[in-house]
Amino acid sequence: MTGKERTRIVIVGAGFGGLFAARGLRHADARITLVDQHNYHLFQPLLYQVATAGLAPSDIAWPIRGILSRQKNVTVLLDRVSGVDTTSREVVTHERRIPYDYLVLATGARHAYFGHDDWEPHAPGLKSIDDATSIRRRVLMAFERAEMTDDEELKASLLNFVIVGAGPTGVELAGTIAELARRTLAADFRRIDSRSARIILVEAGPRVLPAFSEKLSGYARRALHKLGVEVLLGRAVTHCDADGVVVGDQHIPAATVLWAAGVAASPAGTWVGAETDRAGRVRVNVDLSVNKLPNVFIVGDAAAVKDKDGVPVPGIAPAAKQQGRYVASVIMARLENKAAPAPFRYRHAGNLATIGRKSAVIEFPFLRLSGFLAWWVWGIAHIYFLIGVRSPMTVAINWFWQYVTYGRGARLITGERK
Amino acid sequence: MTGKERTRIVIVGAGFGGLFAARGLRHADARITLVDQHNYHLFQPLLYQVATAGLAPSDIAWPIRGILSRQKNVTVLLDRVSGVDTTSREVVTHERRIPYDYLVLATGARHAYFGHDDWEPHAPGLKSIDDATSIRRRVLMAFERAEMTDDEELKASLLNFVIVGAGPTGVELAGTIAELARRTLAADFRRIDSRSARIILVEAGPRVLPAFSEKLSGYARRALHKLGVEVLLGRAVTHCDADGVVVGDQHIPAATVLWAAGVAASPAGTWVGAETDRAGRVRVNVDLSVNKLPNVFIVGDAAAVKDKDGVPVPGIAPAAKQQGRYVASVIMARLENKAAPAPFRYRHAGNLATIGRKSAVIEFPFLRLSGFLAWWVWGIAHIYFLIGVRSPMTVAINWFWQYVTYGRGARLITGERK
Repeated sequence: MTGKERTRIVIVGAGFGGLFAARGLRHADARITLVDQHNYHLFQPLLYQVATAGLAPSDIAWPIRGILSRQKNVTVLLDRVSGVDTTSREVVTHERRIPYDYLVLATGARHAYFGHDDWEPHAPGLKSIDDATSIRRRVLMAFERAEMTDDEELKASLLNFVIVGAGPTGVELAGTIAELARRTLAADFRRIDSRSARIILVEAGPRVLPAFSEKLSGYARRALHKLGVEVLLGRAVTHCDADGVVVGDQHIPAATVLWAAGVAASPAGTWVGAETDRAGRVRVNVDLSVNKLPNVFIVGDAAAVKDKDGVPVPGIAPAAKQQGRYVASVIMARLENKAAPAPFRYRHAGNLATIGRKSAVIEFPFLRLSGFLAWWVWGIAHIYFLIGVRSPMTVAINWFWQYVTYGRGARLITGERK
Repeated sequence: MTGKERTRIVIVGAGFGGLFAARGLRHADARITLVDQHNYHLFQPLLYQVATAGLAPSDIAWPIRGILSRQKNVTVLLDRVSGVDTTSREVVTHERRIPYDYLVLATGARHAYFGHDDWEPHAPGLKSIDDATSIRRRVLMAFERAEMTDDEELKASLLNFVIVGAGPTGVELAGTIAELARRTLAADFRRIDSRSARIILVEAGPRVLPAFSEKLSGYARRALHKLGVEVLLGRAVTHCDADGVVVGDQHIPAATVLWAAGVAASPAGTWVGAETDRAGRVRVNVDLSVNKLPNVFIVGDAAAVKDKDGVPVPGIAPAAKQQGRYVASVIMARLENKAAPAPFRYRHAGNLATIGRKSAVIEFPFLRLSGFLAWWVWGIAHIYFLIGVRSPMTVAINWFWQYVTYGRGARLITGERK
């Protein structure tokens, strides 16, 4: 320590963006505070596996303190941020104000209902561990209640599962719920046949997995069909309540409706009074800083970034990682009075999505793959990217075990029943 | 199906007693209904590992339907029993009445506060998954809050962990929390030293692990001491509130107090109007039936059974298993009009307890063991007895990983914060 105070860097959010920003600053002579409302980093790409009872929450989440325990310039704070005071340069939580010289907001996104917030209680989305365990409880309880009831109409509604939105999350939820009903639970009930459950995937656009090529998108639709998923394309949900959904002019009674149709950025933009796009993402500068606030950066799903061709950077984990790492390099350059790095440039590694336990679609820049081999590539890639999350070996063994037995061990109904 | 109705057997509770009764009746020409308030069987001997973030809930719990999916004469019902009508022979739940010809009550025990029920919110016990995740949240949040506060008095109270009762559960909780503080979390905090936490085990009796021989009990006390656990013997807790506990005339400020001092049977005895002992257990006949109700049986922690020397059968998993299996044989004999089996006789297999990650005490009829080797025997025995629970391989790998890294992967704070 010299006579002068060390630079204070505050990072809000310990998702991929925040974590990679913190790691990129490991050699910084600074006091870094990483604030998150949870004590764990969540591997969101596998959250659907928790929601469908394939993995336990602790298989895909890892204590932030554990990940950063050796990086002594970081203090982790478990707290909920309520705003930013850009004048006094302080992050405001319910209990304290945290002064910063540099601020990185990596606050991610939540599911959004586009003006229909009253749908949320009936059609929960999937962004957090609590979302996932709540969806797991709903799905499993629907089968339990169907087994118990003598009311045929109620039984039909309990065995209808509607998933809204056919991006990767919607496709993965539909595929795994279909397998749960057709295989895992097939021998478990005495009064219902779980295989008679209807899994209905509703998509307003013309095809599933719109981020993929038409060919892979077509493959995915056929793979879903083989699993017994009904895919309704070009049909928007116009109403949603406790009884089910209305799709076009058709009412589908369903006790379980899951929302995978869209996300909106967290309120980071509002906190710093910045210009946002329709989804609430902040339009950042080429160095990912906020306009007129050169010391405030936004990374990941909270930022609206375009690649060199003007195409929006997708809200996926690799993009958040790259942005976190980039912002760390910008701050390092300033701390060391070096030239600023070149503007942020997104490198697209590829798109992946899995459809049930036997197939996947993969689109790398120079390789497209579908089917069983793609599933293995997908599995290996995900295990590989589980940065320090649990023992990747454990996840691998769980998967292998599940694959062999069709069992889903995390099939527990805990907490409050809905 | 013949013209006559098939015999109806109702089993309440899917712990070891209920599950082994159901399995013992797998060849019965009967309609068996197994009712439980949860959808999973819980391997209670490892519950303390969930409470201390070593294992995930789904590592030690397994869906009842999955366990019994191949036994077609069993219907599993997820429901909460509120009473038994012994006149009309019906089990009463909030939603329905279930008629029975034979009834097996395997409803287990809850922790008991012996006239101090107002202590429960301040000193939670450990009997269910929700208990375990709630204790995990409390313990982890105590360290988080200690890291955040500037109030030295509050900090000291947050870093005091009092465990009341030095039976196996109390010893296991104290040992693992000590290791959590001394090893797992040692590098994680910046403002507190988690190793300075005090772990205090309070026992009213003269020694720890009273069910073991004096020699092993002494070994366990020394092993706890080495882990940094303060053991207070012959000292009863006389008061307990949000600020801590009073032990004798000493007030110990503690934000976390855990209760492992005693259990009371579930209300099965009240349901059937039977004579119970002080802990609420039903004094059953030699065939484990209830006095004057020859078709109603009680097994496991809800029953007060004596072995041939008049010594009470302990409330441990092997005893419940033996009783469940025995009652199945009694019912089978009656169904097949055969002679009744000889009175129930308990076979004591041994006592086991583990103290942290390096030692255990084991007392088999012809073998006493302590230390590191005992720990391995304990580990292997438990993995062996995980009947169908998850992949035992997964549990084994988790343990091995944990053992190598001192990490505790299930260290998530989820749900409501206390």
